[in-house]
Amino acid sequence: MKPVVVPTDPHGLFDSRPTFSHVASVLGGPSRIVMTAGQVGVDENGQAPADIKDQYTLAFKNLTRCLEATGATVTDIVKLVYYIVDYDPNNRLHVEPLVQFLQGHRPATTLVPVPCLARPSFKFEVEAYVAIPQAPLQEVDVVVVGAGLSGLKAAYDVQRAGYSVAVVEARDRVGGKTWSVEHEPGDGKYVDRGAAWINDTNQSEVYALAQALGLGLVVQNTTGNVVQQDRDGSVSQFLYGSVPDGIGVASVDDMVKLRDAAEAACQLLDIRDPVRTGGHLDTQTLEEWIRSVGGGPTGLASATVWTRAMLGLEPSEMSTLFFLNYCKSGGGLLQMRSDRKDGGQYLRFERGTQSLSLGLVSLLKAGTVVLSSPVRSITQIDDKISVVAARGDFVCRRVIVSVPTPLYKEISFNPPLPAAKAALAAANRLGFINKVIVRYDKPWWRAHGLCGMLQSFVKDGPVSVTRDSSVDAKNQFSLTCFVAGSAGRAASKLSQAERFRVVVDQIKATLGAHDTKVPPPVGFEEHQWANDQWAQGCPCPAAPPGAMSQYEHALRSVHGKIHFVGTETAYEWKGYMDGALRSGIRGAEEVVRALASPKL
Amino acid sequence: MKPVVVPTDPHGLFDSRPTFSHVASVLGGPSRIVMTAGQVGVDENGQAPADIKDQYTLAFKNLTRCLEATGATVTDIVKLVYYIVDYDPNNRLHVEPLVQFLQGHRPATTLVPVPCLARPSFKFEVEAYVAIPQAPLQEVDVVVVGAGLSGLKAAYDVQRAGYSVAVVEARDRVGGKTWSVEHEPGDGKYVDRGAAWINDTNQSEVYALAQALGLGLVVQNTTGNVVQQDRDGSVSQFLYGSVPDGIGVASVDDMVKLRDAAEAACQLLDIRDPVRTGGHLDTQTLEEWIRSVGGGPTGLASATVWTRAMLGLEPSEMSTLFFLNYCKSGGGLLQMRSDRKDGGQYLRFERGTQSLSLGLVSLLKAGTVVLSSPVRSITQIDDKISVVAARGDFVCRRVIVSVPTPLYKEISFNPPLPAAKAALAAANRLGFINKVIVRYDKPWWRAHGLCGMLQSFVKDGPVSVTRDSSVDAKNQFSLTCFVAGSAGRAASKLSQAERFRVVVDQIKATLGAHDTKVPPPVGFEEHQWANDQWAQGCPCPAAPPGAMSQYEHALRSVHGKIHFVGTETAYEWKGYMDGALRSGIRGAEEVVRALASPKL
Repeated sequence: MKPVVVPTDPHGLFDSRPTFSHVASVLGGPSRIVMTAGQVGVDENGQAPADIKDQYTLAFKNLTRCLEATGATVTDIVKLVYYIVDYDPNNRLHVEPLVQFLQGHRPATTLVPVPCLARPSFKFEVEAYVAIPQAPLQEVDVVVVGAGLSGLKAAYDVQRAGYSVAVVEARDRVGGKTWSVEHEPGDGKYVDRGAAWINDTNQSEVYALAQALGLGLVVQNTTGNVVQQDRDGSVSQFLYGSVPDGIGVASVDDMVKLRDAAEAACQLLDIRDPVRTGGHLDTQTLEEWIRSVGGGPTGLASATVWTRAMLGLEPSEMSTLFFLNYCKSGGGLLQMRSDRKDGGQYLRFERGTQSLSLGLVSLLKAGTVVLSSPVRSITQIDDKISVVAARGDFVCRRVIVSVPTPLYKEISFNPPLPAAKAALAAANRLGFINKVIVRYDKPWWRAHGLCGMLQSFVKDGPVSVTRDSSVDAKNQFSLTCFVAGSAGRAASKLSQAERFRVVVDQIKATLGAHDTKVPPPVGFEEHQWANDQWAQGCPCPAAPPGAMSQYEHALRSVHGKIHFVGTETAYEWKGYMDGALRSGIRGAEEVVRALASPKL
Repeated sequence: MKPVVVPTDPHGLFDSRPTFSHVASVLGGPSRIVMTAGQVGVDENGQAPADIKDQYTLAFKNLTRCLEATGATVTDIVKLVYYIVDYDPNNRLHVEPLVQFLQGHRPATTLVPVPCLARPSFKFEVEAYVAIPQAPLQEVDVVVVGAGLSGLKAAYDVQRAGYSVAVVEARDRVGGKTWSVEHEPGDGKYVDRGAAWINDTNQSEVYALAQALGLGLVVQNTTGNVVQQDRDGSVSQFLYGSVPDGIGVASVDDMVKLRDAAEAACQLLDIRDPVRTGGHLDTQTLEEWIRSVGGGPTGLASATVWTRAMLGLEPSEMSTLFFLNYCKSGGGLLQMRSDRKDGGQYLRFERGTQSLSLGLVSLLKAGTVVLSSPVRSITQIDDKISVVAARGDFVCRRVIVSVPTPLYKEISFNPPLPAAKAALAAANRLGFINKVIVRYDKPWWRAHGLCGMLQSFVKDGPVSVTRDSSVDAKNQFSLTCFVAGSAGRAASKLSQAERFRVVVDQIKATLGAHDTKVPPPVGFEEHQWANDQWAQGCPCPAAPPGAMSQYEHALRSVHGKIHFVGTETAYEWKGYMDGALRSGIRGAEEVVRALASPKL
């Protein structure tokens, strides 16, 4: 759909380019009106920086969040009104951030100098009037909510069974947490801001798709030493696949004992019935369980590395049953954590994992996917389901919801979700993982016999784990640094430049400890999934003690004619792309079976 | 279409009449949202007068421009917000201009006192939120853009040929530059703010229409003396039809020689092929050509009277070929300038020339014309044309565009206009003519043996030419004063009262030179066409040197299924109503031929 907000330059009025137009009209068909509250320059804690320039930046960032949450884009803005305290007409500091925000769009605008704003610290406020173009009502057999891997796979299977499908996506791109970016446009040096690894044995669904799409794969580098950073920051090395030997015998013993206890406990669970087989493990946090099995400080530090890198959380933030069942879904703690054959992190994609999602889209009929159109309500009346989305509504016979459980709250279900499903969604907690990817022009760590993996027991990290994420054939060399859990949340308070600096400092102090000539990075990538409107965390929601015992039965249950998929609903490889695909397959099977059944 | 913005007065709230309503709703079907930027009290150069009252006037004028440019009217305003610096609740100076602007409409409004505005000189700012009612998509054979004479004539002919037509007009009235107004409503004392004259011989199309409509005509008064004002302001008289005799023999010789040279040169041109027959004349401005043929100061002053009164421009602002071809389109310089039989200014209309346009509308099927609906885009896709207009969109098979070439920029053509047509539109320049019409209760000049014509060689005029524009049978007595070209542009910078004063002073000093008892005017009319959103000048665009040689071939060329009419595209009587009608006839013929042709 082409943009419909059109600037008009009335004859005889002064030239208002480039920042605004005297008149903005909504042309080209029906639109949906959206208005924002005045957005001020505060951070997520409501704190306003003293410098008004920082407030401009934050206010436009907050306005961008507002637009994103409602499916609007900057080009949908009809009008902006901004309020400035201590306005100085000779020093129009707002113009630069405004021009940057508008990206060439020209809404009508009004500037209002004011003596103060709602709080003494607020210096700038901006509000937007928005019109989102509306596509005509579309009638399909099945609406899939979300164009991540699980939704796209479900859509593909349903469409292949002969039913019409619309995939309605909130973001302006497909792929969900598969999101791959080049260094420079067209240079082919892809890195993954989100999901990155698969294997070619027990992750058979994702491997089959990669093969079907002809995607080039890269074996994860595990040749050489892992760098171990102990709790006090001291650095040692050990061969990948062995155990650390520079941290003292007692500490190693602590680690190994805990690891073996966790592995043994998870192997007792039945992933198709975790509550019956491990209900007693659902009364404790993982940290409590670690202490109960005699885990010491190093054991706990080691387990913190697991939970941060695997779920973006601390051992105190999840049920023991949840964690062990999560491990078991990937074959067990050791297998899920392994970077070698059969392990969770064995293979990567030359063009990044988003190529899986883009590949699935290419297999769908043209026009199946609608972008930038968050679904806001799903109403079931008799045999029809009405789906209200930002850029146009749908009527269908079945819905497949493929968003993470904690995001169910973004959709108004009518009739409401059953209590257990709503409670499950509310109880589950999304973790914090920011993969800071540091690009280099060469894999300098390999020259020192290092495989690129760091394992850090330092509480505040900020990095818990690094991995070599290079694609040698493309001269793409990088270290992917997991800035996760409470250490990640702390680092997210820093400015981006400061955060990148501390990550590089930690790399130098660990992987670069014996190299006086660690080259400077050539680029950085990161994405703070926890701040992302349509992720709100990653990779996979975790359950606190008690939640699984109460609500696990509601995880995959249908709600009328609405079905639920997503990697967390998988039995195998929860939190992984393979799990996402498996859940999509299940959802599609449920829907096709229902649509094909005679109506009795 | 009835207004859709409806005020509501909630029970128990204070009475908000007459300036606003507590609630305004958009009722009665779909509407299109328009929002304006805050409009401040500045002139077109961005200058704000010191007096806040003047700023109020200018700000509401600018807001009116914004509304007009987008096809909105005051009654479409849902909400007004105004911002006032140094607001004094005990001296509510804004109320009077506000009430005047609203004309009884009551949008919801908010008044915001502010410490300052975007610039230190701004004291007042007003912004509007507007909803324009939308008619359902209409499918017709032909859409005509513009309800001036050319468009209405084309529509009439196409409709008579059996095709369905919609005429989509930007203004809130029909007639384009035929616009006639009474002194008091219903008094029948019409004067013409725009086009005024025809003849009954070589302007056969317009005369035939006037006859068919039964319109009363008045012969232009040429009985008596013309007043001649020389370059130094000195005044003399000469009999209409002779040459001035009070300006010295050498000066008269200069005038006559130039007149004869221009007449001879224009008679060599073929109006159907001006570039071939006069291409060498397209390398010079008219002023350069005048000097090249030996024209002196009086010759140039005389030619300045021609170009100001005929095109609103100076001799330095147009190609010689353009001017001479323009003259030739009316039979030559002498005939076009003549107020007698066969001349350009022979007959006027008792009820003004707009009666021609209103008469054409009365011959069209009811509902053919849509007002206040500027066309914003024309998109040709396969065999369909989509026309987006402010008050509802159209799908059709052919389009006839009847707006002046310099206004093509107001329409987004998709695919874009061919380069030559776009370049022609950009090169052509619209002139400045403000006809200040001074009403009197009697034709006092006739008592002194004057025909009412003044010809002034004074550089700054402001008046170059006057004519008696009375309709004796209706007791409508008036002098129409051409305030044109650079003298007109200078006078437009004055306040209206000041401008009227200098015009009256010049009348007194010339036509009233021998009359100690020139009566005071009883009224004034004027319209600054150059400031008019949908005219941007008048009467007819002129080409600078080189433009005709390069682009004349594109003047009447079709663009896909879009045809172009308008008086400037006529061969005969360019810039006159007869030319407008002739162009409309041509456009209709093109379209009817195309629609009737079998599709091969």
